[in-house]
Amino acid sequence: MDVRVSFAELSKTYDELPMFPVFDIAHYILMILQLRNDAGVGAEALAESNALACWLCGMLSCFGGKIVANFLLGQPVIAAFNSTKHIITATIVWYLMFYSPWDVCYRLISTKLGKLLVYPIKEFSRAKKVASGVAQAAVVYPQGFAVMIIIGAVKGTGSLFIRNVERLLRGVWTPTSNEIMSPSATFKISVTCAFLLTVERMGYIPFPPEQIMFGLTMFIVPYKVSVILLKIGDPYVHVERALRPMLFKKRKRTDGVSQSGKKEATKDQKKKNNDKDSKKKAE
Amino acid sequence: MDVRVSFAELSKTYDELPMFPVFDIAHYILMILQLRNDAGVGAEALAESNALACWLCGMLSCFGGKIVANFLLGQPVIAAFNSTKHIITATIVWYLMFYSPWDVCYRLISTKLGKLLVYPIKEFSRAKKVASGVAQAAVVYPQGFAVMIIIGAVKGTGSLFIRNVERLLRGVWTPTSNEIMSPSATFKISVTCAFLLTVERMGYIPFPPEQIMFGLTMFIVPYKVSVILLKIGDPYVHVERALRPMLFKKRKRTDGVSQSGKKEATKDQKKKNNDKDSKKKAE
Amino acid sequence: MDVRVSFAELSKTYDELPMFPVFDIAHYILMILQLRNDAGVGAEALAESNALACWLCGMLSCFGGKIVANFLLGQPVIAAFNSTKHIITATIVWYLMFYSPWDVCYRLISTKLGKLLVYPIKEFSRAKKVASGVAQAAVVYPQGFAVMIIIGAVKGTGSLFIRNVERLLRGVWTPTSNEIMSPSATFKISVTCAFLLTVERMGYIPFPPEQIMFGLTMFIVPYKVSVILLKIGDPYVHVERALRPMLFKKRKRTDGVSQSGKKEATKDQKKKNNDKDSKKKAE
Repeated sequence: MDVRVSFAELSKTYDELPMFPVFDIAHYILMILQLRNDAGVGAEALAESNALACWLCGMLSCFGGKIVANFLLGQPVIAAFNSTKHIITATIVWYLMFYSPWDVCYRLISTKLGKLLVYPIKEFSRAKKVASGVAQAAVVYPQGFAVMIIIGAVKGTGSLFIRNVERLLRGVWTPTSNEIMSPSATFKISVTCAFLLTVERMGYIPFPPEQIMFGLTMFIVPYKVSVILLKIGDPYVHVERALRPMLFKKRKRTDGVSQSGKKEATKDQKKKNNDKDSKKKAE
Repeated sequence: MDVRVSFAELSKTYDELPMFPVFDIAHYILMILQLRNDAGVGAEALAESNALACWLCGMLSCFGGKIVANFLLGQPVIAAFNSTKHIITATIVWYLMFYSPWDVCYRLISTKLGKLLVYPIKEFSRAKKVASGVAQAAVVYPQGFAVMIIIGAVKGTGSLFIRNVERLLRGVWTPTSNEIMSPSATFKISVTCAFLLTVERMGYIPFPPEQIMFGLTMFIVPYKVSVILLKIGDPYVHVERALRPMLFKKRKRTDGVSQSGKKEATKDQKKKNNDKDSKKKAE
Repeated sequence: MDVRVSFAELSKTYDELPMFPVFDIAHYILMILQLRNDAGVGAEALAESNALACWLCGMLSCFGGKIVANFLLGQPVIAAFNSTKHIITATIVWYLMFYSPWDVCYRLISTKLGKLLVYPIKEFSRAKKVASGVAQAAVVYPQGFAVMIIIGAVKGTGSLFIRNVERLLRGVWTPTSNEIMSPSATFKISVTCAFLLTVERMGYIPFPPEQIMFGLTMFIVPYKVSVILLKIGDPYVHVERALRPMLFKKRKRTDGVSQSGKKEATKDQKKKNNDKDSKKKAE
């Protein structure tokens, strides 16, 4: 009974922890880090030539979850810019990560030790973010099962969904890749969390939500640490590999079609190559 | 008088017909069919490798009208996902159309007979959808003539407007084609319907709306059937061909410009080709 | 004191001037002019082949500020289409600018004299538009410092932000350029104006808002006239050039990285060229 009580107490403490400033700052640091890594070599050029676009990309990354969730719920997308406290904090983080002397901040966070310090703090607060999304959706749609899961997942992994817009802002357009096309483990974890919290809200799980959140957090944090240290992969892959053939199995006939389609494509390709060859020969 | 009375009664019956389940299911079937046809060979790859993206594309297709109309009216775009009943029905249709054994559902619907069964049901309900759009807009903007027509048309042909977003979700980006660039006959019919219903709402047509809807439906359904059977084209083309020279006629001066522009373009092309040739010769 | 009083009186008159019809028409004329210039040779083809897309592009250009501001504030984006008076006026301007005989309207406005007549009227009303944006934001977020500046700037330069969407509508997609990437002087002026009006609203400037607006207008109009007559450049460039090294200075280390990155890119390029050459030789 002792363990149970202490778990319940810890869960309550977890639920009551304020997001600002520690968790928010850890979130901002990682979002700007991901932005710089995503932009690659272009990040320095962007930072030097166009600080405005760079700042806006940074803010979109930091407040992506809020922006996308508000967009889906028909609430002001600009609401994220209302809290001066958060905007200023995020701007300071953005400035230090991009313009610190000798790039010292970026380099420190990029080390394995830096990641081991910041990532667990961020992951520690992920379940709280998902819960806030589920709660936000439940206000508008108390019976919206799918809505709660979607908004919860979006709040938990917001910057991933706004990535394409943010890239567009800095002149990079990658239509063939998005979070839905190749979902990350983080996204799948957020969906799981949102699903459990929604089911609890519907009354099907006999545990209070903060215990679900805290229980999940005790899995997420060690998982993320082992990703950094041991480079382990997506744990969902195994489940997917088992379920896919059962649920979404290959169908005989369309396989034939797609193969013949491929064959035709190959033929076309061959023909093209032949045309090219003959052209070259004609030269 | 007898015909008039029975027409009025039929119209009333038509207006009171519930959309769910028959009309909604016919709508879902056709939207998923169009999705698969639009994705072409890529549909099977998508369905097998990424069921989540495939499902989301399916839902966007099924609820496109609602999503776009809500977006334009500043209402939650996610509202379509609130009705668990509709989401589950659409998901079942999506699953059957993509993953049925030997692809039997898709193959059956794709036959001419299948189309002759489902398309008329869908077209039968189109006028009702347009009317619901006009009514939705009239609540927010009772005097918004243009708004009512736009929302009515969007509700009637929603999936066409969300097509580009839906394609982007599965990694296909076609910026040079959209519904506005090359409007389909379906879109023009919806605009006509929305226009008549809006004018009626303004008090300029001495018929009740349900009679306008039913009267239009008695044209749309036979038209669609003859499209399937006889492959007749867009009936609006003739009107457009007559009106275009009158309203949007060629202007002398800019013709000159555009021709000279074209000439220049041709020259440039020639120059390029010459350059290429000379390069090749230089090799 | 005499000058002060008359300035205050003039400011009040300025504040009370109605936007419709003179200022709105000047705005519509310039927006359609910019649309035609942006579309270039394609404008005529668009106007002749697809009047609907052309009209929608025109309306997006004319009401861009309202649409983007409403989108950001979670208000109906279609609200701009609610005012029949404005829509009809904009449609008449659009029609005259695109389809007038011998293109006489477009040609007249395109002359230096035409621009000297219309641009000052438009610039005269810009400060009022920015003020309306700040006021609109202040209703929703009375403490939202950043929100007021953003919405004010967007209202003042709306068509610039909707340009990419508008291009997409006519089948042109330019992901590598947008207003944030290369901000125009107009945009920077609007941001300055929005900033001053927001600071005043916060109570830090001891002048009434209409005097700030009128004072700014007395700079903007002569500036725009000298841009047309003397082709002078962006006045902000000098400030930016002075501030950039101080605030966003080059960092030693990442420069090295980016240079080595460039070197690698050059190497890759060279390698590619070599490959090509060897292929050609192999032929």
